[in-house]
Amino acid sequence: MASPPERRPHPATGAWMPGQPSGRRHFYKLPRPFALEHGVTLRDVVVAYETWGQLAPDASNAVLLCHAWTGDSHATGRAEDGHPAPGWWEGLIGPGLAIDTERFFVVCANVLGGCQGSTGPASAHPDDGRPYGSRFPVITVRDMVRAQARLADELGVAKWHSVVGGSLGGMQVLEWAITFPQRVGSIVPIATCAQATAQQIAWGAIGRRAIRLDPQWNGGDYYDAPDGGGPWEGLAIARMVAQVTFRSDNVFTDRFGREVADGAAAGEPVGLWQRFEVERYLDYHGDKLVQRFDANSYLVIGKAMDLHDVARGRSGVAPAMARIAARSLVMGISSDVLYPIYQQHQIQQLIAAGGAPVEFVEIDSPHGHDAFLINLEQVGPPVKQFLEKSAQP
Amino acid sequence: MASPPERRPHPATGAWMPGQPSGRRHFYKLPRPFALEHGVTLRDVVVAYETWGQLAPDASNAVLLCHAWTGDSHATGRAEDGHPAPGWWEGLIGPGLAIDTERFFVVCANVLGGCQGSTGPASAHPDDGRPYGSRFPVITVRDMVRAQARLADELGVAKWHSVVGGSLGGMQVLEWAITFPQRVGSIVPIATCAQATAQQIAWGAIGRRAIRLDPQWNGGDYYDAPDGGGPWEGLAIARMVAQVTFRSDNVFTDRFGREVADGAAAGEPVGLWQRFEVERYLDYHGDKLVQRFDANSYLVIGKAMDLHDVARGRSGVAPAMARIAARSLVMGISSDVLYPIYQQHQIQQLIAAGGAPVEFVEIDSPHGHDAFLINLEQVGPPVKQFLEKSAQP
Repeated sequence: MASPPERRPHPATGAWMPGQPSGRRHFYKLPRPFALEHGVTLRDVVVAYETWGQLAPDASNAVLLCHAWTGDSHATGRAEDGHPAPGWWEGLIGPGLAIDTERFFVVCANVLGGCQGSTGPASAHPDDGRPYGSRFPVITVRDMVRAQARLADELGVAKWHSVVGGSLGGMQVLEWAITFPQRVGSIVPIATCAQATAQQIAWGAIGRRAIRLDPQWNGGDYYDAPDGGGPWEGLAIARMVAQVTFRSDNVFTDRFGREVADGAAAGEPVGLWQRFEVERYLDYHGDKLVQRFDANSYLVIGKAMDLHDVARGRSGVAPAMARIAARSLVMGISSDVLYPIYQQHQIQQLIAAGGAPVEFVEIDSPHGHDAFLINLEQVGPPVKQFLEKSAQP
Repeated sequence: MASPPERRPHPATGAWMPGQPSGRRHFYKLPRPFALEHGVTLRDVVVAYETWGQLAPDASNAVLLCHAWTGDSHATGRAEDGHPAPGWWEGLIGPGLAIDTERFFVVCANVLGGCQGSTGPASAHPDDGRPYGSRFPVITVRDMVRAQARLADELGVAKWHSVVGGSLGGMQVLEWAITFPQRVGSIVPIATCAQATAQQIAWGAIGRRAIRLDPQWNGGDYYDAPDGGGPWEGLAIARMVAQVTFRSDNVFTDRFGREVADGAAAGEPVGLWQRFEVERYLDYHGDKLVQRFDANSYLVIGKAMDLHDVARGRSGVAPAMARIAARSLVMGISSDVLYPIYQQHQIQQLIAAGGAPVEFVEIDSPHGHDAFLINLEQVGPPVKQFLEKSAQP
């Protein structure tokens, strides 16, 4: 069966830490304690965010972008000091682009529970200055959105022109429109859901179990482990699970087929750990993530996604969705197996049933869920048209 | 974040071990060393098998059933001493049933590399009598089939009336018909593939990584660990991955929705490890498997599935499949996301292109891949008709 390859060393966490270059980030520290939906109160909460463009004097041109699971405030821009990866919607945001920064004031904040500047499990607990680790509470998408609402107050944005995002970002978009119908002019939820389904929860649970199995997770308290001491192997496996559900059978076949990555030496038998190309690809993505992400943030945000349910405390999904007053552009992806297009049609129908105007665009792509980050030529034009049309009086 | 639940104790392996009740099993020990496709030679190979019905004097009525990943020789029959689970096709095999044991002599053998009586990683190495563990080599579906061919010789079956199986079983069915076209009268490959795809390999690789991450896997040598010392947590996670791909989004939604399994005590906040019903279901199936299966067998059989490629050494998939001379009944499942129905149509077309007679039946089921083990009312009638029709002169 031969020995498995050695664990390669990685830092204990890929979280951004105070003292590292802050890059384009701004930090807003909430002046008051922040009560979470499930009862715990956090103190000294920080929201890290980036902005592009100028806020109009009447503050009518602000667009909020909500990021997905492993995203952060860096929606566009290069990888540079303080930003380990290029913007997740690079090419969509800028002067004259789909989200036109000559026209709109664009804001993107790292979610509560995240690891790129906003308060999360890797942040210092105000009691002792040591990372929260196992002490970090369960949070919800509503908590994320309410923290963003505090930021909006700070920025002088009483009402967003639009709130836009895919996947977890789309969950935030829906919660924004339901929780604060007066503060949202229009929304663009993409490849998301009104309630996490059992299958989505199942995938999330498997990732959680993989991180928990990593002995270096250490119950969530691994931040003072030396290099190579973090639960990066568990996080990498969790990421692999997600990565397969984010893509598609057909594209994997076209791209990798049955190519072998690690050739056996001449005459040597095939080994159990000899990889196919698709395994090398998954390893690569796992390795890339652990360098810029924190395993506990992955757990906490994943749990928030599993807990996502617009119906909670609102007498059902239909009454909850009927609160949406914003003009809506709902987008779905033809090959998405994680947030299938039938769920996007449900969102469209639920919004329409509440009486708000809603448009629907299908992204026709073989790339699966991630198409909203890949097929920008299909995402951009309808978003641009929608934002600019709904900006008119 | 609260502490995760404790690991529950389990035996180091769920393999059947000599000295345990043998149940309905027979054992055939190959009289000669067995050379594997990838160059290693095994000695003292044992094939465990069960039979039902009587072999006709002209040996024309033998049907071979090939089991799936975690199956074994117990295709039908109760759970009883020596058989930890009831037959995997219980209800399909017996007097007057779809696979009629009054008419056919039915054989099912545990695959090479398995853990229910046939030689596998938990078996004693002939050199020292200790389990193979990390010393067990990589095997292929062709190795499994050639071991079954030795058993057929022993049983006096020169030619199978039919070879039948789903998933990994279907891979064996195809290899039987391609490797031994003169020894196979008809075949029923169900929900399988001619070549494992990149996505199938990806799921397999994630399961392997989860087992490897379990510190109790110990490089594959865990058999002398005390109770609770085996890599059952890694195996359970690998099983969870498989379990989700074996089922379907819609059935998970209907069956589990967003029900919570572990209620928080009144006033307590929601915990990170508080489970939804679907998580309890996955835990249940993971726990059930570790009690009757061996983690190394899971690795070795999974790798054989990833290596499955009828084209290997045969100048391509079309020439390989064109070797099939048997009458064929190809079956696919409408909701199968792991071995999608398009792959079953490919198998049908490849066989037809080679000139052999082929029929196609679609199982119309919401249950996903596992429908071939669930919707017996749809599997049984076409199999019965096919077996009995092709038995006529």
